Amino acid sequence: MPSPYAELRRLAYEANLALPASGLVKYAFGNASAMDRGRGVFAIKPSGVPYAALRPADMIIIDLDGRVVDGRLSPSSDTATHAVLYRSFSPICGIVHTHSTYATAWAQAGRPIPLLGTTHADHLDRDVPCTRPMSPKAIRGDYEAETGNAIVKAFRSNSPETVPMVLVHGHGPFTWGATAEKAVYHAVILEELAKMAFLTLGINPAAPRLNRTLVDRHFNRKHGKNATYGQKP
Amino acid sequence: MPSPYAELRRLAYEANLALPASGLVKYAFGNASAMDRGRGVFAIKPSGVPYAALRPADMIIIDLDGRVVDGRLSPSSDTATHAVLYRSFSPICGIVHTHSTYATAWAQAGRPIPLLGTTHADHLDRDVPCTRPMSPKAIRGDYEAETGNAIVKAFRSNSPETVPMVLVHGHGPFTWGATAEKAVYHAVILEELAKMAFLTLGINPAAPRLNRTLVDRHFNRKHGKNATYGQKP
Amino acid sequence: MPSPYAELRRLAYEANLALPASGLVKYAFGNASAMDRGRGVFAIKPSGVPYAALRPADMIIIDLDGRVVDGRLSPSSDTATHAVLYRSFSPICGIVHTHSTYATAWAQAGRPIPLLGTTHADHLDRDVPCTRPMSPKAIRGDYEAETGNAIVKAFRSNSPETVPMVLVHGHGPFTWGATAEKAVYHAVILEELAKMAFLTLGINPAAPRLNRTLVDRHFNRKHGKNATYGQKP
Amino acid sequence: MPSPYAELRRLAYEANLALPASGLVKYAFGNASAMDRGRGVFAIKPSGVPYAALRPADMIIIDLDGRVVDGRLSPSSDTATHAVLYRSFSPICGIVHTHSTYATAWAQAGRPIPLLGTTHADHLDRDVPCTRPMSPKAIRGDYEAETGNAIVKAFRSNSPETVPMVLVHGHGPFTWGATAEKAVYHAVILEELAKMAFLTLGINPAAPRLNRTLVDRHFNRKHGKNATYGQKP
Repeated sequence: MPSPYAELRRLAYEANLALPASGLVKYAFGNASAMDRGRGVFAIKPSGVPYAALRPADMIIIDLDGRVVDGRLSPSSDTATHAVLYRSFSPICGIVHTHSTYATAWAQAGRPIPLLGTTHADHLDRDVPCTRPMSPKAIRGDYEAETGNAIVKAFRSNSPETVPMVLVHGHGPFTWGATAEKAVYHAVILEELAKMAFLTLGINPAAPRLNRTLVDRHFNRKHGKNATYGQKP
Repeated sequence: MPSPYAELRRLAYEANLALPASGLVKYAFGNASAMDRGRGVFAIKPSGVPYAALRPADMIIIDLDGRVVDGRLSPSSDTATHAVLYRSFSPICGIVHTHSTYATAWAQAGRPIPLLGTTHADHLDRDVPCTRPMSPKAIRGDYEAETGNAIVKAFRSNSPETVPMVLVHGHGPFTWGATAEKAVYHAVILEELAKMAFLTLGINPAAPRLNRTLVDRHFNRKHGKNATYGQKP
Repeated sequence: MPSPYAELRRLAYEANLALPASGLVKYAFGNASAMDRGRGVFAIKPSGVPYAALRPADMIIIDLDGRVVDGRLSPSSDTATHAVLYRSFSPICGIVHTHSTYATAWAQAGRPIPLLGTTHADHLDRDVPCTRPMSPKAIRGDYEAETGNAIVKAFRSNSPETVPMVLVHGHGPFTWGATAEKAVYHAVILEELAKMAFLTLGINPAAPRLNRTLVDRHFNRKHGKNATYGQKP
Repeated sequence: MPSPYAELRRLAYEANLALPASGLVKYAFGNASAMDRGRGVFAIKPSGVPYAALRPADMIIIDLDGRVVDGRLSPSSDTATHAVLYRSFSPICGIVHTHSTYATAWAQAGRPIPLLGTTHADHLDRDVPCTRPMSPKAIRGDYEAETGNAIVKAFRSNSPETVPMVLVHGHGPFTWGATAEKAVYHAVILEELAKMAFLTLGINPAAPRLNRTLVDRHFNRKHGKNATYGQKP
């Protein structure tokens, strides 16, 4: 009998392979997962396995409490973070974590990425948020779950549907989306926004944030019920 | 009967494909168009279609008022900007819009790219202009046409024939030329000029603009009726 | 009779070929060696031979006093540095030297690379050390051996097992590991840490070092007897 | 009868093709030439022909006065600069001109590239010189020959044998060597030195020049009659 998780594993596998292909990760860094809301489980990359050696069947099936449901290998060390995000951000069905160079530099700098242009506004209508530093107690405790909690706290005034990315302070980016493929797309976009913002402030340290009217125009052109971008279904 | 627009579509298609090949765009970002002055129409990329899926027949034929003349898909969301530029800059027959990294950083910084060296002077004899910020009214109105209008305003004292590129404030670059292929060439050159200027000011924040005599020498070596560069026809 | 060094040469050869493949070296720059603790010899790249022309049989076999044991070509000019490190850092069995761009920039700046994020803490729990400048006497003397001595001095308060990399002041990086392959891995990681730190301080010149509790958490997650990262053997 | 210039053309052709392959030039930018001291002529790239379309037979044969000796196409617009350098720097038999990004940024900044590390000292024992700005009279006169004269002036206290590269103020780099292949090598090295110096001063704006004893040690290890680097002939 074929596994009920074969298709979910394939989605997670393809998203994971897209990470080194897009230049966002080296070696075994980074991980992607894909969620099946119907079954209440997600598929995630095994820990420390190089991308070249990865097969779809290696993906681990995890429930929303972070427990292994199916799979022979140990799941990614960041599995508990994914579980928290899937529990808290109900519409999302894909998560990606990388240490991509420019986004990680902003995370290490402890700074949100300011909304400086329309490339940014095409994807989210505010700064890319950065979590607060974690307390020593949280770090010594259930660290990976606490990383998820720190992200959730940063979203008290943000919606995970309109802000599909975050910087974890001192660590690196997490991105998500309606599918694992969209989460990968947001990881690529975030790295580009991070690089553009670095360069912009190098050219003009006083570069102002993009005018609010222009932010709304660009964001709404691509998102929401009056979106005009792309092909009509 | 073959379409009267087949050749125009092919020109636009090839220019669009050159954008990801040259590293200037990711995913479906950016767009190129090709103009047929005899028929008064241009061919442009459909909106939000990934480059890998694009075919020549997908190009949309648009008239100078920005109306669809032929084609099944929705045209690029920037179509009205292209139409304004073709109406206002009569000699040009190709336009390219990208969010290339360094040029976009200058646009986000709201700064013209200063003419710092002969690589720049080989292509244009003054700073790369940057448009003024658009008014909230223009942004809320016919935004894409107003983007074209903002570019045209920036050319009151510039000729689109000798200055084949512009930065739209807070947004990114548009380039053009006598053909769509030349517009792509100018997009590649602009990105390189933007990177060189960023690095030059990093090395020497007080780097002066290139001596005017040297600007004229280089610009005239490649342009105008006494040009000595290249092969005689 | 097959050479007793064939396998050692293969390990050194593959590590050397990995250097240009990873983008860390150009032309004949850089060198990698592999140690056989049982025989007390290591295999190293010949001097000034381009990577494309290299064959496994070209690797030179050297003893711990830096003398050629087997091989027809002249060994890398940095051979004496490798010999000192193998003598002084007893657990290591692979060494890599490159002039990779960002790591070399930190070496030229004469600055240790500060521990600014978890990518760094995943690999070492302190700043990447930088040697003191060498005295004119050491430079004029047995220069390559003195380079090794300068590295050893920088490790009076560091363990080569937990700190697998160093910057040689004004020169460039050396990395090492339990195998030549691990030494290459550390050379790639060091270049990435060097780039991330450069960018981080560009964004926030006052970026603090990573919280000590977080350093320990990440370092111990991947290293030591309670490591949880990767697959159980 | 085969052309007496076939081999010279092949050397120039291969050096020209190496420029886009090494990432130093885009489109038709840049040029390389190869000198035959016996015949007193050099072969150079035609003007404005894209690299992809270039054939060995397209190379133009020029004498030391800069006159075309053989070839159907117009020679590179920089031909007169090459002729001056071959006349003045008698040992050199290859010249390369590029607008490579980092080296051009230093030229635009009007700054010599400071000798900050051993990568630099392995190739030359002083700063990469930058010419003085040219006078308006020189620019309006025989500009390309005057560019050569400005380079020669910068070498009153430098030897073209030990300093195989220069920055032309506001323009870009020229490099040379005992062969056209060596000139290409120096163009690649210069770009890397320019990038490393940019990054080094970004990390530590007060980074001192490399200690003189260390400069001499590295330079003499690779150059001169007591060189120990590479394989004995």
